[in-house]
Amino acid sequence: MNKEKKFILPEKEIPTQWYNIMADMKNKPKPLLNPATREAIKPEDLYPVFNEECSKQELNTTDVWIDIPEEVRDKYKIYRSTPMVRAYELEKALDTPAHIYFKNESVSPVGSHKLNSALAQAYYCKKQGITNITTETGAGQWGTALSFAAKAFGLELAVYMVKISFEQKPYRRSLMQAWGAHVIASPSMSTKAGRKILTENPKYQGSLGTAISEAIELALQTTNCKYTLGSVLNHVALHQTVIGLEAEKQMEMADDYPDVVIGCFGGGSNFSGISFPFMRHKINGDNNTRFVAAEPSSCPKLTRGVFQYDFGDEAGYTPLFPMYTLGHQFQPAHIHAGGLRYHGAGQIVSQLMNDNLMEAMDIPQLESFDAGILFAQTEGILPAPESNHAIAAAIREAKKAKEEGTKKTILFNLSGHGFVDMTAYDQYLSGDLTNYFLSDNDITKTTDLLEKII
Amino acid sequence: MNKEKKFILPEKEIPTQWYNIMADMKNKPKPLLNPATREAIKPEDLYPVFNEECSKQELNTTDVWIDIPEEVRDKYKIYRSTPMVRAYELEKALDTPAHIYFKNESVSPVGSHKLNSALAQAYYCKKQGITNITTETGAGQWGTALSFAAKAFGLELAVYMVKISFEQKPYRRSLMQAWGAHVIASPSMSTKAGRKILTENPKYQGSLGTAISEAIELALQTTNCKYTLGSVLNHVALHQTVIGLEAEKQMEMADDYPDVVIGCFGGGSNFSGISFPFMRHKINGDNNTRFVAAEPSSCPKLTRGVFQYDFGDEAGYTPLFPMYTLGHQFQPAHIHAGGLRYHGAGQIVSQLMNDNLMEAMDIPQLESFDAGILFAQTEGILPAPESNHAIAAAIREAKKAKEEGTKKTILFNLSGHGFVDMTAYDQYLSGDLTNYFLSDNDITKTTDLLEKII
Repeated sequence: MNKEKKFILPEKEIPTQWYNIMADMKNKPKPLLNPATREAIKPEDLYPVFNEECSKQELNTTDVWIDIPEEVRDKYKIYRSTPMVRAYELEKALDTPAHIYFKNESVSPVGSHKLNSALAQAYYCKKQGITNITTETGAGQWGTALSFAAKAFGLELAVYMVKISFEQKPYRRSLMQAWGAHVIASPSMSTKAGRKILTENPKYQGSLGTAISEAIELALQTTNCKYTLGSVLNHVALHQTVIGLEAEKQMEMADDYPDVVIGCFGGGSNFSGISFPFMRHKINGDNNTRFVAAEPSSCPKLTRGVFQYDFGDEAGYTPLFPMYTLGHQFQPAHIHAGGLRYHGAGQIVSQLMNDNLMEAMDIPQLESFDAGILFAQTEGILPAPESNHAIAAAIREAKKAKEEGTKKTILFNLSGHGFVDMTAYDQYLSGDLTNYFLSDNDITKTTDLLEKII
Repeated sequence: MNKEKKFILPEKEIPTQWYNIMADMKNKPKPLLNPATREAIKPEDLYPVFNEECSKQELNTTDVWIDIPEEVRDKYKIYRSTPMVRAYELEKALDTPAHIYFKNESVSPVGSHKLNSALAQAYYCKKQGITNITTETGAGQWGTALSFAAKAFGLELAVYMVKISFEQKPYRRSLMQAWGAHVIASPSMSTKAGRKILTENPKYQGSLGTAISEAIELALQTTNCKYTLGSVLNHVALHQTVIGLEAEKQMEMADDYPDVVIGCFGGGSNFSGISFPFMRHKINGDNNTRFVAAEPSSCPKLTRGVFQYDFGDEAGYTPLFPMYTLGHQFQPAHIHAGGLRYHGAGQIVSQLMNDNLMEAMDIPQLESFDAGILFAQTEGILPAPESNHAIAAAIREAKKAKEEGTKKTILFNLSGHGFVDMTAYDQYLSGDLTNYFLSDNDITKTTDLLEKII
């Protein structure tokens, strides 16, 4: 056992390929469907909205390994490899026999793992000759990452930011502007989708679903412009596998191996990133590692949603996705982990969940902040509210190990830091935060609206 | 020449000793004086205020190397070694033949280099059986660092935060509270020094000098309590040399050597940290590297102050320091680089300045933010407003290298990130920031009040 605290790979060990789990899955994800014809989507159906390379990656179920373009890998060198850290102080505080490791994606210059896919998407757009891109952002982490990525590859970017975040997180907005992006509060009057919602409900505080509709609409109406998305989609999960591929080598350096791998769960980007490279060994029957997605109790699509075809956005501009979903009209409570307020899980994760290759835990808001503060006071890093869910799940696992008196190795992904989320901590420390729980009726209200296709 | 972008040392290469430049200096710093007797201060004179080990380090002019306690080095492993990065993208944007490297102290969990000394000071207090510590903070970076360090070693901490920062930087305050510190706006009614100032000027927005007076007073009046300081003092500079010692090894990895080393300058902590280990070779006559302190035009003690004995705080509780100073009653403009708003330079730096072993540059506020934004848009990291001064100085040097057509290797210290300073960037991006320049009269108003001792 290597007793060092921090494991970092040399530059030459930064992965040169991403891992495409779809090629290894025995049950492939069910296809995306054209909502009008119910026919399976082909790459060229996605070209009007996405760049061509990402469109192909989205539907690629055959190539296990996809080369990381040298231009992207060169930008990765700014912050990768990210450290994998043994959380000795947290272990001590919990008095647990478990080994707890975390992969620290918060050291990326934008403060989260989102940059891993932002750089790839911006690069592919640039390569295709595209000049303008659009996106949406909830908590602001994806928008922040894409702002730097767009600047790095010389693209103009418009970001639709969910209105409640736009107002509650002025620091996030300024961050995106510092990197040169145009930021618009959503719903806005700049799109048909936004105008419709604002007319029906002028005080609507926005949602990721609405912001996605607006960003797609702007991309379709702008010359030489494509849309980009920071989670849910298969090509995003693909780019994020750089996290788990590094962690796998770092676990070797530590001379250890995870019994359980944990990521917080919004649309699936950081969970997929840390998990898939380890999961390939489970799919191949080589081990029996557990994979845990930690989602908020207020938005529990994996633990309480239905597995059904649904739209990715509120207005219904996207294809139909086979997903664990709460229904695309579900309006989550305003928890501070804005990045986890999404109604559905990606296509791959949903299939893996259905096949029992992974599991999910739902975490109440207060438990997540308890975990985040304990982590800050032991390991020093103040986590993003999203990441707090992964920490809370890791703490549950470590406590169970103590109760059962078993040795257990836990690896979780620290998806980002919380420096730009201090309003949330301020509320927590003042005792003003609450939990949000849902009745069965809260859930069936929107899931019952879904057509039964699966 | 090693073409990698990022240079990181393995854990075993984290320094085991700090470098004490006083032992190598040919002209030792002039002594600290007791203001009443005018006698040179001895370590035991400092014991009422500081822990004993730091008091000894403060006056140690004989030992070149001081062991880093294993407990402190163990905490360093959380974030050290910090990366030294070649700023290829910034070089490209400036079209300069210069090589620009930066040491990235912003990856520390508190976001700045301040943790290097905070951990040492907290540890020495703990070891001495002290239970409570006090300090002051201006911009908030020192207070943040000490909050985590106090928690890490199980001490109670009270932080006097300069009132204007307390109000303008609620995120900083919450950060300190998340790590468990008690934060009080200064001037406050909790001390005699604070009450006096508030009575004379109820609207006074505070200064570092006042906050220091309050923190010292509270320490003196509390059982088993010591005061700690984040800059200016010799033992703080000593602890920060871990930065330059790492950078020296990293320069070897890069197969390069700096012609000029740059740090922003408030009281001297990060400048000393990056510079002193390289400067020992200049003192020994082995090379002729230049050392540049980058200070704000609004607080130009090195470029326009006088070399004279002065108090370290506003109320006159400290010994008399031999320092380049604007006078302890100087009230700097409210620039956003709060950490650089201090009236004097430390004892060592002042002597080095006087002996022409280093030089200084003053940077207007707008130039500093221009530099910070260019750095963010090229290298990805959004710097602290303080660090922007070092970047601006590095850019001046790189432009000069281009004009002169000379190859030059520049190393600067990125002392911290700007995630908690977005209000400043917001003002800059909105065009609301201004420069502050001083007339000669602005300076002599307070320097003329100083007694002529040197």
